[in-house]
Amino acid sequence: MLYKDIIKELTHIVGKENITTSKEDLICYSYDATNQKFLPDAVVFPKNADEISLILKLANKEGFHVVPRGAGSGFSGGSLPVEGGVVVSLERMNKIMKIDADNLIAIVEPGVVTGELQWAVEDLGLFYPPDPSSLKFCTIGGNVAECAGGPRAVKYGVTKDYVLGLEVVLPTGEIVNTGTQTLKGVVGYDLTKLMVGSEGTLGIVTKIILKLLPLPEATKTILAVFSDMRDAAATVSRIISSRIIPSTLEFMDKNSISCVDDYANMGLPADVEALLLIEVDGDRELIEKQAEGIKKICLDNMAREVRVAGDKREVKQLWQIRRAISPSLAKLKPNKINEDIVVPRSKIPDAIIGVREIAKKYNLTNANFGHAGDGNIHVNIMIDKHVPEGFNQGSDKAEFLRAEKAVKEIFELVLGLGGTISGEHGIGISKMPYIGMELSPTAIDVMKKIKQVLDPKGVLNPGKIFPTL
Amino acid sequence: MLYKDIIKELTHIVGKENITTSKEDLICYSYDATNQKFLPDAVVFPKNADEISLILKLANKEGFHVVPRGAGSGFSGGSLPVEGGVVVSLERMNKIMKIDADNLIAIVEPGVVTGELQWAVEDLGLFYPPDPSSLKFCTIGGNVAECAGGPRAVKYGVTKDYVLGLEVVLPTGEIVNTGTQTLKGVVGYDLTKLMVGSEGTLGIVTKIILKLLPLPEATKTILAVFSDMRDAAATVSRIISSRIIPSTLEFMDKNSISCVDDYANMGLPADVEALLLIEVDGDRELIEKQAEGIKKICLDNMAREVRVAGDKREVKQLWQIRRAISPSLAKLKPNKINEDIVVPRSKIPDAIIGVREIAKKYNLTNANFGHAGDGNIHVNIMIDKHVPEGFNQGSDKAEFLRAEKAVKEIFELVLGLGGTISGEHGIGISKMPYIGMELSPTAIDVMKKIKQVLDPKGVLNPGKIFPTL
Repeated sequence: MLYKDIIKELTHIVGKENITTSKEDLICYSYDATNQKFLPDAVVFPKNADEISLILKLANKEGFHVVPRGAGSGFSGGSLPVEGGVVVSLERMNKIMKIDADNLIAIVEPGVVTGELQWAVEDLGLFYPPDPSSLKFCTIGGNVAECAGGPRAVKYGVTKDYVLGLEVVLPTGEIVNTGTQTLKGVVGYDLTKLMVGSEGTLGIVTKIILKLLPLPEATKTILAVFSDMRDAAATVSRIISSRIIPSTLEFMDKNSISCVDDYANMGLPADVEALLLIEVDGDRELIEKQAEGIKKICLDNMAREVRVAGDKREVKQLWQIRRAISPSLAKLKPNKINEDIVVPRSKIPDAIIGVREIAKKYNLTNANFGHAGDGNIHVNIMIDKHVPEGFNQGSDKAEFLRAEKAVKEIFELVLGLGGTISGEHGIGISKMPYIGMELSPTAIDVMKKIKQVLDPKGVLNPGKIFPTL
Repeated sequence: MLYKDIIKELTHIVGKENITTSKEDLICYSYDATNQKFLPDAVVFPKNADEISLILKLANKEGFHVVPRGAGSGFSGGSLPVEGGVVVSLERMNKIMKIDADNLIAIVEPGVVTGELQWAVEDLGLFYPPDPSSLKFCTIGGNVAECAGGPRAVKYGVTKDYVLGLEVVLPTGEIVNTGTQTLKGVVGYDLTKLMVGSEGTLGIVTKIILKLLPLPEATKTILAVFSDMRDAAATVSRIISSRIIPSTLEFMDKNSISCVDDYANMGLPADVEALLLIEVDGDRELIEKQAEGIKKICLDNMAREVRVAGDKREVKQLWQIRRAISPSLAKLKPNKINEDIVVPRSKIPDAIIGVREIAKKYNLTNANFGHAGDGNIHVNIMIDKHVPEGFNQGSDKAEFLRAEKAVKEIFELVLGLGGTISGEHGIGISKMPYIGMELSPTAIDVMKKIKQVLDPKGVLNPGKIFPTL
């Protein structure tokens, strides 16, 4: 609990209409997409970097914790106040400050919703590629904190590939500008990239300079159906090695597909083992040629059926299947343990076969889908964590314990294949117990030293990433 | 001078054939492309990370300096032993360890020559885009240390955009692996990007995991001639906003062009104010269309002449002009102060006009050329520093002092235009006095804290980047 004096000082900084300590409000800022809840002691809504600076200076003086928060859509707990303290909600800092078409940059505040930025730049014939599936509500600030990815990463990269510079309030309250407004810049250490993906533990980002691209002229969407998952995986490799880099190259396995309602209505064969949803973008004539090339590669690699979407309605229908998967998995079991593992592209079949074996060994339901083009597969272990009234699928604590063992084995498998335990979601609290499986003690030690030297009193977003600090 | 005991220990680590203290050898490792010389006390040629680890542990114990060195082609002094000590030459660690076409990655040792890697991957239909003009002799390790760029950066980015992971020996001797072998990866802080561009001050890179691309099918080269520099600059903006991102978009001003011998033989008009050398790459049919589009944009923007190279011989001839510029500038004056400033693309005319005004004010000869596509212009102030026998062009110390003042004013101009004082070369010792013009005391303080926490005894590459440490 915060002393009254601190609340008074915080109120003085942000104004009394921009702070809350009411239980009802605190609950609204206690959760994220991990479905875990930690009540903060207060939530403040600053309007600029100066106010955040004062809040952090006060935190260092008085010794309370500060946790930055965008839309709370993260999958690893980055915005959760796990040790209480003050949540700094960035929702009022939501201005697109500049879109500069000549220099292909945008300057935005952290609270801008990713999708809104995308639509704003697309209106001007420009393109901001990173497309986490939460793009309709997640914020650029959160994307920067977690280094969000998305389906288009296979061609266009992830958030960090678009962040040229930042304004950041350091844990000690100083405001610092990093990077440049230009594509090139090598003055001093790359503090920009150090901040991106640091999960709100090294600073609170208050302004973001983003690189934009010209908007591709057109896109073309292709669906390919396979009876053997290895054929689908071989197709992925063949497409890339044919010099075509699709803008998305999504994979869905049997269990994923079977949950989607519309699936049956699509008239696809019942014994499908894998689907690929492939999109190419760019010059209108070129993508026609590429779509033909992809269709041929799919058929050469034993695709049972390949559909090239004819019009916008068909494209929408194809993407509806892909987007419906994540929520529809609840049909298998009410809860999922969603792990965003990555393996080298050629290892996707080994990863998926291995994951299925582990699931079978522990008697667990498993569904896999995701970004095959860059090897980033969302592995879902379906469990029944809590049993609501009148809804019993044989849930038990034992299942959860089996799932935990399975997750650890999946990470071992993934690391053995030369992969990583997180491609997009970050560590936060969700993968904190496992970070030592991927990083050496030396690597963790270096990271902790950097954290410590920038946040000597440990006020900013404590209890994240590193098991102990 | 190093004690004999230290030399003995170093000899024990690397073997007696892999260490030298002879004056003749030391001279060979005392310089780089800045043309400054600092004699080391010894040069060692380790064969792996373990030996480098032992060297750094010894340095921390005995208190001597260690300076890593690739090919010594840097423009900012990164590999110079400014405070003496042991140069660690990475020339023996020159193996391409793996080229993985399925997963589009290469794993290399730091001493691999950049061009050799490019040719090796191109033989397999793959592509490593960063192309510093020293690519025939510079090394990937040096490219990583300085975050090298090149003409192709406008479309393909710079070295850091291709480094997925590293093996690094930290200043204290621990060996750490950073990053992943996959396109995505968000486990912990991005130590990879922190190391890239840290100019050999945070660690010695011993292994590099690089992202590759499929090799573009074809390229097309275009030369456009302008009577007004503003027309050339407008053309650059119009090309980009027409949704064509060329693979190179090079600019040369009048003074640059006039030095090139072959120029007259090209049959170009005498009163040319600017040239653009533009290349597009990719699908064969698409680039034909793009080349036509670019030609039209050039003519619409008052180009006096546009040539599309018909065959390889013509392409070679066009690039010969571009490559001849840097060495041929010696015709103007024997020495150049070469600054790799960057401005937002739309500010190129303001930058060049401003630079010329400053040169005029200080009665200096100036020539500008470089990467217009990303706003990275090589500004050259030509001076006569030392007067060799029988070669006197009116050199004096006063000219050098005027040039120093001009450089400072050029940096003020560039920063005022929203640019940066270094796009490719780094700070090293050359721009150390000016770093405070671009970075705030807070930013410098954060960087120095990171340096200090990783290198508490200051053994690794001291006297670089930061004016005092």
